[in-house]
Amino acid sequence: MIVCVAANPSIDKLFEVERLSVGAIHRPLSFVQVAGGKGLNVARAAHALGAEVTATGILAGHAGRWIDETLHDDGVDAVFTWVGGETRASLSVAARRGIGLTEFYEAGPDVGEQGWRDLEKLVEELLRRAAWVTISGNVPPGSPIVGYARIVRAAHDAGVPVALDARDEALELAVAEGPDVVKVNAEEAGTLLGVSIASASAARDAAVAIRGSLRIGGSAVVTRGAEGAAVALPDGRVLWGRPSAEGAYPVGSGDAFLAGLVTGLERGEGWEEATRLAFGAAAANAEVPGAGRLDPVRARTLASVSELSLVPST
Amino acid sequence: MIVCVAANPSIDKLFEVERLSVGAIHRPLSFVQVAGGKGLNVARAAHALGAEVTATGILAGHAGRWIDETLHDDGVDAVFTWVGGETRASLSVAARRGIGLTEFYEAGPDVGEQGWRDLEKLVEELLRRAAWVTISGNVPPGSPIVGYARIVRAAHDAGVPVALDARDEALELAVAEGPDVVKVNAEEAGTLLGVSIASASAARDAAVAIRGSLRIGGSAVVTRGAEGAAVALPDGRVLWGRPSAEGAYPVGSGDAFLAGLVTGLERGEGWEEATRLAFGAAAANAEVPGAGRLDPVRARTLASVSELSLVPST
Repeated sequence: MIVCVAANPSIDKLFEVERLSVGAIHRPLSFVQVAGGKGLNVARAAHALGAEVTATGILAGHAGRWIDETLHDDGVDAVFTWVGGETRASLSVAARRGIGLTEFYEAGPDVGEQGWRDLEKLVEELLRRAAWVTISGNVPPGSPIVGYARIVRAAHDAGVPVALDARDEALELAVAEGPDVVKVNAEEAGTLLGVSIASASAARDAAVAIRGSLRIGGSAVVTRGAEGAAVALPDGRVLWGRPSAEGAYPVGSGDAFLAGLVTGLERGEGWEEATRLAFGAAAANAEVPGAGRLDPVRARTLASVSELSLVPST
Repeated sequence: MIVCVAANPSIDKLFEVERLSVGAIHRPLSFVQVAGGKGLNVARAAHALGAEVTATGILAGHAGRWIDETLHDDGVDAVFTWVGGETRASLSVAARRGIGLTEFYEAGPDVGEQGWRDLEKLVEELLRRAAWVTISGNVPPGSPIVGYARIVRAAHDAGVPVALDARDEALELAVAEGPDVVKVNAEEAGTLLGVSIASASAARDAAVAIRGSLRIGGSAVVTRGAEGAAVALPDGRVLWGRPSAEGAYPVGSGDAFLAGLVTGLERGEGWEEATRLAFGAAAANAEVPGAGRLDPVRARTLASVSELSLVPST
């Protein structure tokens, strides 16, 4: 079973317009909302790919109850801790013409020390029957900056491998605990390493550098959106992959990538095969509105044709 | 008691950024959400000004329960009918630099014929103890286009005056029933009359034309944002007013205007005094984040200094 940690869930809204005009009132051409935040996107995508999944995180208020109910309706097993206030929403405005995607992320409620401790306790219980743990997204307001690092350590104490997709100081501290997979986009990798990552070769170098900072057997992925991603494997080889199709709804494709990778690894597939499933899931996610939504058959098809090549690691 | 009809309520979110950059991810400098949609903004503002208010409308799901609970916490009496789905949200992005306000309005759930009939029945019950009715905002998806016209007629059958702020065909059909006050912005007035309203004098002409289409004793207001508003009074005189202060949060100022006008009229104030309170409430609303939120003392102060002049009606 894969435990998907979504510390700061969100009602993820996709609001489609012809064009975004600063200063104007917009009404949607189409609109869809899902139980989101990166961790729940991973959970939904992994569930769609056939993995046994339990999502967990911190919810609040009426918006939190909508998320809990919606995940249940989606068939995704989930268990949460609760704090006061209201779970946040994130609005992604997708323009059919002009620049594609403009996003507005609310911060979410202050979870406080107690809210975070409740989450850690819940994760520790779930670890007893977990084969993998994913940790995705920003830490919520009020949580300790070492929060993700402590979850990585708890997972390792329980003998469960961890895949991490976070940002800023919480990422840095958790990477120091040696997670098994680090998956970040180029911007987050750049902040972590203190460099600018503006090309495929820079992403390759960053993946190699991050992998080098992990314990032996670790892996690092640095993504550059539709251009592709560098995957530094545990054995030192580096793959460069490119999604085999480019859909109109890229929100959540990074999360679908992580879901595909961990779903493959949990099944005992080799790294190359799991990486192919990751690219297939990312491409399939982009073909359907709603982050973390995908057609699993389509993901398998796209996995089988995704371009994947060995690149020099230096 | 003033009945405030909010047929399609909304969680109104104000998301403040330094600058809106198309294609970028935005995190808020400040964030506030209120139980909104124009009708609930009117209710909150009138309640703040000291009026006895009952808000009503159609709610749905968890978002609807948030609105119901929040109004209760705000001390605003409210009673709703319920339909399936989820009540909508509206995101107003306020930029400190560049163009001020960019808005994203979700559509809201389909209320269906039954949902609308339930609302009409509820309004008819409330009319028994009402002194004024306000109707504000767009009709919700699935409602009959004559819905507002039917509420205007029901109010008149019960001997209760009606103030209307709507748009498009629902506005046109309801205006034909002869509401007592029509308050629209220049764009809505332009659509109603089939003209372009690009100046104060055009707004004055529009107010006179709309008033002329009402029964004797009717009044029409056409607003041009911070520039001011034309008020065609029941006695044929026309006033031009300008808010005496310009705040940073103009969302909901038009609703606060209507709340001030009807609060004054319900108390038996003359039209000129009620119009002053309307301008004071609109200006006070713009000084505080959150549509329909205002400091009533400040509204009275701004009312006493608001510029108001008699203008030629032709």
